[in-house]
Parts: sequence; C-alpha cells; structure tokens
Amino acid sequence: MTSSPIDCLPQDMETECERLSQQMAFIAEAEKLKAVRRQTLTLDNGRRENSAEHSWHTALMAMVLAEHSDLKNINIMRVIKMLLLHDIVEIDTGDTFLYDEKANASKANRETDCAKRIYGLLPSDQQQEFIALWQEFEARETPDAKFAAALDSINPLINHLITGGGGIIKHRVRTSQVMEKKKHIGEASLALWEYAKAAVKAGEQRGFYLSE
Amino acid sequence: MTSSPIDCLPQDMETECERLSQQMAFIAEAEKLKAVRRQTLTLDNGRRENSAEHSWHTALMAMVLAEHSDLKNINIMRVIKMLLLHDIVEIDTGDTFLYDEKANASKANRETDCAKRIYGLLPSDQQQEFIALWQEFEARETPDAKFAAALDSINPLINHLITGGGGIIKHRVRTSQVMEKKKHIGEASLALWEYAKAAVKAGEQRGFYLSE
Repeated sequence: MTSSPIDCLPQDMETECERLSQQMAFIAEAEKLKAVRRQTLTLDNGRRENSAEHSWHTALMAMVLAEHSDLKNINIMRVIKMLLLHDIVEIDTGDTFLYDEKANASKANRETDCAKRIYGLLPSDQQQEFIALWQEFEARETPDAKFAAALDSINPLINHLITGGGGIIKHRVRTSQVMEKKKHIGEASLALWEYAKAAVKAGEQRGFYLSE
Repeated sequence: MTSSPIDCLPQDMETECERLSQQMAFIAEAEKLKAVRRQTLTLDNGRRENSAEHSWHTALMAMVLAEHSDLKNINIMRVIKMLLLHDIVEIDTGDTFLYDEKANASKANRETDCAKRIYGLLPSDQQQEFIALWQEFEARETPDAKFAAALDSINPLINHLITGGGGIIKHRVRTSQVMEKKKHIGEASLALWEYAKAAVKAGEQRGFYLSE
C-alpha cells in the first residue's frame, strides 16, 4: 500500500489531513509514470519517451489546438484533465504498443486493475471522478473524449517526423495499419485529420512506414 | 526558425492551414523541454528529472489539490495552463537551480528572450495569451499564480522524500534557505504550507538539508 510521503498536518486539521494524505499518496505513486517507456523517441539523444512527458505534450497540444475541434461544446478543461490522467494506468501494465494486436486484446482488463489500485489511493469522490474521466477517454464516445483521443493519436505522428522516426521503423508497420488506427482523428477534427494524413504520407516517404 | 514538421492542409483550408502550421511549429519546438534537466531525481534509476515530466506532475497536482486553496475564486483551468507552460522558457536557458542566487539574478532577462522566440512561433493571439499567462505565473500576484507557484514549490520537496533526496544533498542547502524559498506556499494554502514544513523537517532529519 502506497502511503503519503509523510504524516502531515496538526491535529486541528484532522479532516483535511486525512484527505491530503490520501492525495499525496496518489501524487507520489503517479511519479512512477516517468519510468514507463513508450516506443516513440525524443530529440534528447534518441532515448525512449516516457508516458509522463508524453502526457504533458498532449495536454499542451489541447491548449494550443482546441480551436480545430469540429465537435460542438467541447470542454477543453475536461480534455486536458483526460490527457493528464490517460496513461497513469500504465504504471502497472507498461505502455501497450498501438500495433501489437495481441497485447491490445488484454489491455482493458490489465489497465482496469491498475486503475482500481492507483485511483483507489485517492479520497472516494476523486477516485470516482478520475476513473470516470479515464473510462470516458477510453470509450471515445463523447466529444471531449474524441478530441482528447485525436490529440493522443496525432502526437506520435508528429514525434516520428521531428525525431527521424527511429522508434517506429524497426516495427515495420504498414501505412494502411497506421491509417486504420488513426482515422478516428477525422471524427474530432477535419483539419487535424488532414494534417495527420499528410504526416503519414511524409513518414512513408521517409521510410518510417511500409508502403505496401 | 522552427517550422511545422510538414506543410499540411489542402488549399481550400488556407487560413486554418496557416494557423495550424504555426501551432505545430510551436508544438514541435516545445518537445525540447523533455531535454531540460532539473536537479531533482526520479525513481527511474535516479536519473535527473526533466522539465516536461515535472510540468505534467505539477499540473496533475493542481487537479488533485485544488480544494486546498485558501484563495477565493481560483480558476483551476488557468492554474493548470500556467503549470503546463511555466517551464517552456527553459528550452533556451536551462533550468535555473532555485538556490543559485547568481544564476537567478539574470533568470528573468534570459527567460524573457526565450519566451519571445518560442511563443513567437504561435499565431499572435495565442502568443499574447501564453506570454501573459507565463508572466502572471512569474509575478506571483494573482490568486491563480500564487496557487500554481505553491504547487510548483511543494513538488520538489515531495520528490526529495520519495527519491531519497539524492539530487539535493550535494548542494548542501540549509533548512533556513529552503524555508525562505518556500514560505510563499502559505499565501496560497495553509494546509499545503503545513505539509511543506513537515516535508522540510523530515528531509532535514534524513540529511537532505543542513540544519544549521
């Protein structure tokens, strides 16, 4: 059981202390997302990107690209919250590579176990809120979730281009597989989908994805 | 001049294309924050934390700890946006160690030059919005900025405890220096300040900070 790094508050703040201790236990546990490695590389000597810095990059993209949503009434605050949380379940499971169909078949069950453990560290109201946000993101049915998922999906295409594609080439992924996995971007934003298609085409020309 | 990783959109989307190209240039440039190293370590084999994953961790803290603000009418969306942006200026300057007084004397000028360059990649409305948010964070005068700064300040104290303090011990920082740099937390949240003081005391007992 993860606990708060310290006992915290004077006795006269007992109720607040209990919640804060639970919250700090969650924050300390979430630190481990910095150790979850993705297939994507970084510009920083071509090391493998971790899921914490990836989460930051996608949340930043939400701030910058919100105007390109074709879905009405998206709440960019909820989109950003989903993106900050979306990979925390990987702390126990590791990142599941998008094109590994076998691993993806068991992904939901494995991640649900982790969600219960890690979000279970929080006070029950936040536990429910955060698990609901994560489930909404995974289901990809609401406008907020569709837009968040579009950003999460276009992010590695951009990273392939700016880092020279080193992390993806060895997997010999076909362009048709990439297009199939990414086409949902078009449900959220025509502009981002046009950009994504151009990124895939440029990646294919540079040898990141196989053309047949 | 950084540019968008690709030219993007069909001709009939020319206006949107121009904005999206500028935004993608900014997003590609921001990737470099993953290469900015902080003094703080991670649990991941004790490597030095980078400013991108730190920014994610502080934004996550804002989601979790918003209720502990003593300042009325804070807008947690603005707090999270500030935290996602707050270190981007370090891409050109590197992280300035909090207890390095000489480096801190020139920090504002160096970071302002970087802000002009990197935020200058964005469309002018977003450029103004993001620079204003960053300046508000740095000035630490508004409730949103005070709360964001409190989270940014308490974060390394927690990381010292969960990573064993390796990144700070060699700097031989005195407890009194830590308290002086962190006391502003109390302006934003009594609960977080009590927690911070307890963290500093625990860190001193474990030899992270010098007691005299």
